[in-house]
Amino acid sequence: MSEELQKLQLQLNGINLKLLHLLSEQARTADEIVRIKEKQGISEADPIGVQQMVNELASHNPGPIDNDTVMRIFMEIFNAYPKKQQNEKKERKLLV
Amino acid sequence: MSEELQKLQLQLNGINLKLLHLLSEQARTADEIVRIKEKQGISEADPIGVQQMVNELASHNPGPIDNDTVMRIFMEIFNAYPKKQQNEKKERKLLV
Repeated sequence: MSEELQKLQLQLNGINLKLLHLLSEQARTADEIVRIKEKQGISEADPIGVQQMVNELASHNPGPIDNDTVMRIFMEIFNAYPKKQQNEKKERKLLV
Repeated sequence: MSEELQKLQLQLNGINLKLLHLLSEQARTADEIVRIKEKQGISEADPIGVQQMVNELASHNPGPIDNDTVMRIFMEIFNAYPKKQQNEKKERKLLV
């Protein structure tokens, strides 16, 4: 592999790790929002406002990824979240 | 909305924007790797080594997102990429 390619691959690995840590921070923050809302007795179908956030993000998209793809990626990220919650609830029920 | 919730929602919006910019940087870097490989006549089914990168990322996962979800999110991100390339190629052909 040429030096230029090696440099780019290292750069890509670094970006991936940063993405992974941001995704984890995002999940923790979304988790906290849902936890507080549940504690306050606020019950919403979309407690973290996913649709609004995704629309907002598309309007800030610097490219080169097109808006449809950006929206699909973020929907995949946010969809992963309630599934996790549901699994946790199921596990809790199994433990009772 | 309580002050605590407002603060968390602002924090989440900030994380989302950082994610969006990192995803764009990632797409540009992957694009550059593919461009150089094409120029050097290197033809690979997986030029940016997606499977290896996804496995590597799962091994660095700090949580709370489970590994399966991390891998699904990154596969969605990387799968978006060749689709874009294919569309560009199609468009180029239409222009010729």
